[in-house]
Amino acid sequence: MKTLTVALPGREYDILIENGLLSQAGRRCRAALPRAGRVALVTDSNVGPLYARLVRESLEGAGFAVEVIQLRAGEQTKCAQSLSGLWERFMAFGLTRTDAVAALGGGVIGDLAGFAAATALRGVDFVQIPTTLLAQVDSSVGGKVAIDLQAGKNLAGAFWQPKLVLMDPQALTTLSDATFSDGMAEVIKYGCIWDGEFFSFLEQRPCRERIMGEIEHVLYTCCDIKRQVVMEDERDTGIRMLLNFGHTLGHAYELAGHYERWTHGQAVAAGMVRAARLGHTLGVTDAQAAGRIAALLEQFGLPVEIPCTPEQYAAAIGLDKKGAGEDISLILLERLGRAVPKKLAKAEVLKLL
Amino acid sequence: MKTLTVALPGREYDILIENGLLSQAGRRCRAALPRAGRVALVTDSNVGPLYARLVRESLEGAGFAVEVIQLRAGEQTKCAQSLSGLWERFMAFGLTRTDAVAALGGGVIGDLAGFAAATALRGVDFVQIPTTLLAQVDSSVGGKVAIDLQAGKNLAGAFWQPKLVLMDPQALTTLSDATFSDGMAEVIKYGCIWDGEFFSFLEQRPCRERIMGEIEHVLYTCCDIKRQVVMEDERDTGIRMLLNFGHTLGHAYELAGHYERWTHGQAVAAGMVRAARLGHTLGVTDAQAAGRIAALLEQFGLPVEIPCTPEQYAAAIGLDKKGAGEDISLILLERLGRAVPKKLAKAEVLKLL
Repeated sequence: MKTLTVALPGREYDILIENGLLSQAGRRCRAALPRAGRVALVTDSNVGPLYARLVRESLEGAGFAVEVIQLRAGEQTKCAQSLSGLWERFMAFGLTRTDAVAALGGGVIGDLAGFAAATALRGVDFVQIPTTLLAQVDSSVGGKVAIDLQAGKNLAGAFWQPKLVLMDPQALTTLSDATFSDGMAEVIKYGCIWDGEFFSFLEQRPCRERIMGEIEHVLYTCCDIKRQVVMEDERDTGIRMLLNFGHTLGHAYELAGHYERWTHGQAVAAGMVRAARLGHTLGVTDAQAAGRIAALLEQFGLPVEIPCTPEQYAAAIGLDKKGAGEDISLILLERLGRAVPKKLAKAEVLKLL
Repeated sequence: MKTLTVALPGREYDILIENGLLSQAGRRCRAALPRAGRVALVTDSNVGPLYARLVRESLEGAGFAVEVIQLRAGEQTKCAQSLSGLWERFMAFGLTRTDAVAALGGGVIGDLAGFAAATALRGVDFVQIPTTLLAQVDSSVGGKVAIDLQAGKNLAGAFWQPKLVLMDPQALTTLSDATFSDGMAEVIKYGCIWDGEFFSFLEQRPCRERIMGEIEHVLYTCCDIKRQVVMEDERDTGIRMLLNFGHTLGHAYELAGHYERWTHGQAVAAGMVRAARLGHTLGVTDAQAAGRIAALLEQFGLPVEIPCTPEQYAAAIGLDKKGAGEDISLILLERLGRAVPKKLAKAEVLKLL
């Protein structure tokens, strides 16, 4: 088993990575939550039928009373109504301040259940059991939890670190290729921004099968990078912005597709290539980066270019309202493995795009 | 002006107490929030018509863009629907992570707007401008914010300390006698649990007029006690429970009146007298305490006894569900000015009541 420890002031928790970990959930949670009697296990209609019973029985075997709460799969579940529904379910279940909430699923379930845990009874313990590649390498680590508002994504939320993150790579075997590739966009991002050797490692294993052959190493490497970034900047006021590489322009592509045509990973993929090209134009990024990123993304069936209007770019960089004349911090690459924030006038960025 | 500083790890804020402070809100907020451009000013239909314009103009005078959000007065506003309504209003107003939310009103507005501030964009700065006696001496200090659920009061929320608390005693002049007395129950509580001399001070000024004659001292003394308690136990896992004196039994009376017949202050008043009598029965509390507390409460028109069934007592101490055989920590007085938590079997407490 691989273990990473996230050490923040006054709180410390482990990320455990091992095949078959879902069936050890009870024992692992008991060690992290010695006083808890009840666990509200939040999942969705995709993941619940596959894994909820296994996890519930493991938790019950360790002496927890468990309530499985299964929500409809999909981004639209990450809303205020689901949040208040979870609060009421927790109370009906008899959850107390010494009990816990566990999220079994992808990013939507982790973000929603984590926010509910952060706020039920002013905060109860929380366990992440991510089952998608995207959630394992990104959203389950770092403590950002949120729901979407009508005004946009992730606009209400909290910083609430889990007590434990359990990653079972076997859960990834039931993902569709498209969902797996969605996570690969973030995996490749870590190579781009932080670790050129890891990027080369991925280039040498350019398909799902070969990645899965070394998945524990892949998860460990990504989570270790995110862990270092979060430990330095939990509240997202500095270095954590490097994780946004490809995300600002990706946001334009999500807008262009009305959040339906392109998944988050697809939009980030095209955003990374565009950001690398922009960096080259600005003399920041070396000449090869964009091409190598695009070639690797294409191996996983990810788009490297998405059509987008100037208006959509303007909205994504905040030039559509009150932002005219202001600067934006765009994350650019110096080379593969090293990202830097670059302050640019928004109007200038728009002209270059 | 009287100033108290609440110093918590990594955060520190002032409580300012002075007549006329509402009209200085802009200057005071500017000092505490040097970077903020926008302030969402949340108030209710009782307080807004009296003071929102004054505060808004003061804030605008200090260079803030202000949006006044006026909600319907009353406990039913402290709900999940109001919370998500506030989030959307904040976003429509263009609130960013460097902006702030201010609560102008009583405990309902402070708790609701504070929770919205704690969670909008994962947390923005927050200013409390309490206008009732209850909010000034209790709910605006200490960082507990929450909404009510269908399952009960204050069940979803956060610990979110304000950046500044502005108390203008002149705002109390527009309160009804009943609402003023409601706050007096908590004022008297501080004397009971922490400061016997302050209790005697209140006994010598047994009417609204004489209290108002020394209101800055009264507010300062109460907030100073709460400040000391909160600094020692922000997250409410220890000494902060002393503030619950009269509240557990008070909860039974609130239930008995279906949260309509008796206000929070009235229920706490009767709860304190009953707890003092119970303490005497148990040999913990001296013989005079209950009588002196009752006499002082009666001077302010507060009830010292409220009829209540055994079932309602059972529900309030958590004996109605899963709690049989368990203990409860009841706050009892040793004498006026000194409270102690006392672990008692719930069934035993019920028999004594």
